[in-house]
Amino acid sequence: MKKVDHILKNALVLTMDEALHHYHQGAVAIHGDSIVAVGIEREVLSEYSSEDTLDCSNNIVMPGLINMHTHLPMTLLRGLSDDLRLDVWLMGYVMPVEREFVTPEFVRLGTQIACAELIRSGVTCFADMYYFEDSVAQAASEMGLRGICSQTVIKFPTPDAHSYEESIEASRNLIRKWKGHPLIVPSVAPHAAYTCPPEILHAVTELALEYDVPIHTHIAETAEEVESMRKETGMPVVPYLKKQGLFEAKCFAAHCVHIDEGEIRTLLHSGVGVSHNPSSNLKLSSGIAPITKMIELGLNVGIGTDGTASNNDLDFFEEIRLASFLAKGSSGDPTVIPAQKALEMATRLGARAIHLEDIIGSLEVGKRADLILVDIFNLHNSPQFSHAEFGPYAQIVYAGKSTDVTDVMVNGKWLMRNRNLLGVDEAKLIAQSQEYAHEIDQFLIKRENSVLSKLIAIGGTSQEESFEVQAKLSILDPKPILSKLSKPEVEILRKRHYHEYDTYFSFKGEEGRLRFREDHFIEDNGEISNVRSRLTLLQPSRENRYPQDVLLSRSRYLSPAVQSLRFYREYFKPSREVEIEKDRLRFLIKYEDEEFYINIDNIQKPDLGQFLEIKSNTWSQKDAQEKSEKIVDLMHFLDISPERTTSKDYIEIVETEDNE
Amino acid sequence: MKKVDHILKNALVLTMDEALHHYHQGAVAIHGDSIVAVGIEREVLSEYSSEDTLDCSNNIVMPGLINMHTHLPMTLLRGLSDDLRLDVWLMGYVMPVEREFVTPEFVRLGTQIACAELIRSGVTCFADMYYFEDSVAQAASEMGLRGICSQTVIKFPTPDAHSYEESIEASRNLIRKWKGHPLIVPSVAPHAAYTCPPEILHAVTELALEYDVPIHTHIAETAEEVESMRKETGMPVVPYLKKQGLFEAKCFAAHCVHIDEGEIRTLLHSGVGVSHNPSSNLKLSSGIAPITKMIELGLNVGIGTDGTASNNDLDFFEEIRLASFLAKGSSGDPTVIPAQKALEMATRLGARAIHLEDIIGSLEVGKRADLILVDIFNLHNSPQFSHAEFGPYAQIVYAGKSTDVTDVMVNGKWLMRNRNLLGVDEAKLIAQSQEYAHEIDQFLIKRENSVLSKLIAIGGTSQEESFEVQAKLSILDPKPILSKLSKPEVEILRKRHYHEYDTYFSFKGEEGRLRFREDHFIEDNGEISNVRSRLTLLQPSRENRYPQDVLLSRSRYLSPAVQSLRFYREYFKPSREVEIEKDRLRFLIKYEDEEFYINIDNIQKPDLGQFLEIKSNTWSQKDAQEKSEKIVDLMHFLDISPERTTSKDYIEIVETEDNE
Repeated sequence: MKKVDHILKNALVLTMDEALHHYHQGAVAIHGDSIVAVGIEREVLSEYSSEDTLDCSNNIVMPGLINMHTHLPMTLLRGLSDDLRLDVWLMGYVMPVEREFVTPEFVRLGTQIACAELIRSGVTCFADMYYFEDSVAQAASEMGLRGICSQTVIKFPTPDAHSYEESIEASRNLIRKWKGHPLIVPSVAPHAAYTCPPEILHAVTELALEYDVPIHTHIAETAEEVESMRKETGMPVVPYLKKQGLFEAKCFAAHCVHIDEGEIRTLLHSGVGVSHNPSSNLKLSSGIAPITKMIELGLNVGIGTDGTASNNDLDFFEEIRLASFLAKGSSGDPTVIPAQKALEMATRLGARAIHLEDIIGSLEVGKRADLILVDIFNLHNSPQFSHAEFGPYAQIVYAGKSTDVTDVMVNGKWLMRNRNLLGVDEAKLIAQSQEYAHEIDQFLIKRENSVLSKLIAIGGTSQEESFEVQAKLSILDPKPILSKLSKPEVEILRKRHYHEYDTYFSFKGEEGRLRFREDHFIEDNGEISNVRSRLTLLQPSRENRYPQDVLLSRSRYLSPAVQSLRFYREYFKPSREVEIEKDRLRFLIKYEDEEFYINIDNIQKPDLGQFLEIKSNTWSQKDAQEKSEKIVDLMHFLDISPERTTSKDYIEIVETEDNE
Repeated sequence: MKKVDHILKNALVLTMDEALHHYHQGAVAIHGDSIVAVGIEREVLSEYSSEDTLDCSNNIVMPGLINMHTHLPMTLLRGLSDDLRLDVWLMGYVMPVEREFVTPEFVRLGTQIACAELIRSGVTCFADMYYFEDSVAQAASEMGLRGICSQTVIKFPTPDAHSYEESIEASRNLIRKWKGHPLIVPSVAPHAAYTCPPEILHAVTELALEYDVPIHTHIAETAEEVESMRKETGMPVVPYLKKQGLFEAKCFAAHCVHIDEGEIRTLLHSGVGVSHNPSSNLKLSSGIAPITKMIELGLNVGIGTDGTASNNDLDFFEEIRLASFLAKGSSGDPTVIPAQKALEMATRLGARAIHLEDIIGSLEVGKRADLILVDIFNLHNSPQFSHAEFGPYAQIVYAGKSTDVTDVMVNGKWLMRNRNLLGVDEAKLIAQSQEYAHEIDQFLIKRENSVLSKLIAIGGTSQEESFEVQAKLSILDPKPILSKLSKPEVEILRKRHYHEYDTYFSFKGEEGRLRFREDHFIEDNGEISNVRSRLTLLQPSRENRYPQDVLLSRSRYLSPAVQSLRFYREYFKPSREVEIEKDRLRFLIKYEDEEFYINIDNIQKPDLGQFLEIKSNTWSQKDAQEKSEKIVDLMHFLDISPERTTSKDYIEIVETEDNE
């Protein structure tokens, strides 16, 4: 009789091995960090004994679940913003808050909360991707969880790096520090093909191959990503990454929502594992991944929760059920991804997908003792039928709850007993998280109250302020002005023809307006040669008036409009929106040694007729005074009466007419 | 200061009223069965006091949830069979078991388990549809839950009625007994348009109008239902039901998965409420209901779990989250059905849909005190942000769990306090349910072991046994036989030309075979005039041999094949399947005063060549002996040597060739 550290007996043991062996009166013997026996109770007990023998009261013992794609520290951003489009959510809320708040301490606390939640949900191994990944590894290993910790590398500055080279360096340090740890597998995470240029992809592949660590990335989460990748490179994401050599390392990828059968085969032959994240994909409307086809072709597909900012929790039972339901619902075939297959995805297939199948994913002799106990004798899972072979699997997947998990062991060590987390002060974690939430609330409330702050939050450092003097008046016919401009007193430095589409956002309780302008450059042959979008915040402050109503105009904050009009609409939530469309001839001229812009505008929508604008940039009170005087001169030269100028912007003219 | 029965204070009160008023430091005062005050705590406490004042520790107080479509007693069939197609699941498992087991006692126990589960999940009102509905009403009212109890009426015999007239009578008795009860609203449930002919629809409408009770039905759950309704009536389900007058009563309908915008408008104008059942629709692959469009057009859409046999639990938090997720995922727009809208569906919109909005669905003065407390200060819902107006709604919908519900009150009476169900012996309910499961297991195990039992289970009483004597032999040319048949010794009573497609199912460990035959009747002009399908169980017992190998053939159990070949394949799960296709000329002749069938068969797939069969039905040993002698005579007359006969069936010939 061999003595072992633990024996679990009187259990319904689901081994989740290749043949799905299960034992109705089963037992598992554990010694050190490993499983030394699993099978029929009588046989296990005839060979092994232990001072710690647990009667499982006929409940289920099975391998711990594997959450193969998540961003653990984002528990602190749970519920930050919901029911928004991906770009608004990510670029309008998540990234600005991350830039402001993410530190090693933030990451540590967020990871602790996440680990507690994972353990309660029966998860014994995770694959994380975030910043300051060393803090994730530290916090998770202290809590006893197994995990792949992947340091993010991306082309933008991040909370933990000014450049991607710093992130590569951080990844190398992470790998050196954690390689060989009994619980933590260090890894590098090139964020995605569209955020990582080839030099990043090559650098991370080299690093992963040098240290034989896995690469964790996102692939084809949205249709837009695939579309723009096709435009840029002529191919979809999977062949592009293969061409860049990424798959030479041990890879696994989240999402893979928009990939075709050929790409599935490429992933299969390249040994790339896939994480299916049904809650996140639904909540962000990314689409439905073709997992039925993936599984049919033999791809290793596991399940992930993604981060809690897009889920909004780490309840793994929800994900498993949804993986099955969604496959049935989207395929029109209720027999696909049956309960046992969904549970394989959550265990053995997930382990294989993250390249850890040799040590976890099933209850087999020699594997690590990562296992959970699930109570199935409760009201919401009664009664129990025994006629169907896969009945217990269906119980867990279709009627089980994460709160049915009673006990969790990782690497031979208990982390939860009878629903009590060992060594975790939950109340303290909750209180600490609340302090962060309070600070983030203050930050966001302040920002939400000012259009300028919101603009700065998404525009990064690209905003600039400008001042100008300007005169403007309605004209009936531009011809006389054009002929004057060809006189020798005027030197034309540049002439451009534009068609401009402006959308003005107004806001309740704010005088400022935001203008989204799409400029179409029109060539002499009438063709559009270029399109440019700009966002301009028009502040209400008219600081001064000069002779003949020449105006020192509003301060303007400009930024290139890299997002769509729809994005800005949903992000800024204007109370009113007005469109103005005009044809503009724009001259840059020199008159009396001073440069001026002359705009001859034909306002077509709404039909306001034609206007002349004379403008010049300025930088000081004195300069503005001088320039305003020269503008009056120029008007005289152009045979225009300065008395007829208006101080109104086009938008103001439109709104005045609307109100009349 | 007015004395009231209960006050809930220090709560985050979500009233779920039309304007979505909520109070961060709110209170609710309850007296008798009703809410007498709701609002800011300070204001409520300045007017009311109570000896039962509960400090809610800042947790959420909100109206109880409304599960508007379920089949409560089916908790006892939870997990009976999973991962099957709707028809196999329903006709192969659920209905045979219901026919055998459903009694008032079964219904009572199933309802008790369901009610306990509903209360734990925060549901305070359900709308049920089942058999023996009086037992549902009795059990639910004893447990203190509010519910609409709808007696099923359907054209088939049911566990509680031999005919629909009996069900109508039971409905009338139910209504008379329960009408006016403080908790129970009796109702009648015509099962669906495709299972209720017009006379049933008219009878239930008349009954509902006579007593002013609601009608509860299923509409357009599957695409097939709509397709066949179009074929039969020339219109889809909604206009058909409207034409039958059903919507003159207060109606509500489950599913409505396959309805178009016109039908949505019809439901809207007819005041019909809709129950969206996302889990059930996904699990059975029924499709995704267009709830975004319904909500946009103003239809009253609530949420239902459907029965536990297709869900598999009554966890209402899952349903709410899935309603939101699925709408986002299927519309491609993550902003649709935001958290607050999903929660409205689960409360006020659901109440409106089941025509009870005047008494439940929101926390408003004068409405019944049906409310729940939800703990949001837990690990999986931390932290809490306050900058977003609808943050608490998002917390409940996206990160909340049913196990977060701590207290439940219905009609002013506590049913659960601090997660303890009051007056419910859960262990006893679980044990009793297990007794049923054991009996059902025995029934199914016995049935699964015999193809004949499985055939009887789905074929009802239509099976019959037949015996025949037969001789069969290979021929090269049918012409000489055909010319002999035109001689005066033979009277041809009937001649038919068929093309027959046979699929044989074989089973491991069973000698019997199941044959699915599709007969195409071919007219003289070569056109197919009719198609008929039959299912035949071919038992292996060859009971006797007669002169010249004339055979007393196997006993046969016949039933019309009303389901598809696919259905039978998935229901019977054969271990082997063989197809045989043949052209058959079939004569019914009289020879020497005895009737015989003559088949001239050309076996085309696989190509076995031509065969002659002579057969006659028989009923006794003596008759079989006499007929076999006459068959030998007939063979002589046809110039055929009786020595060449074979005793093998075509399928046996095929299998013999396969093995060689």
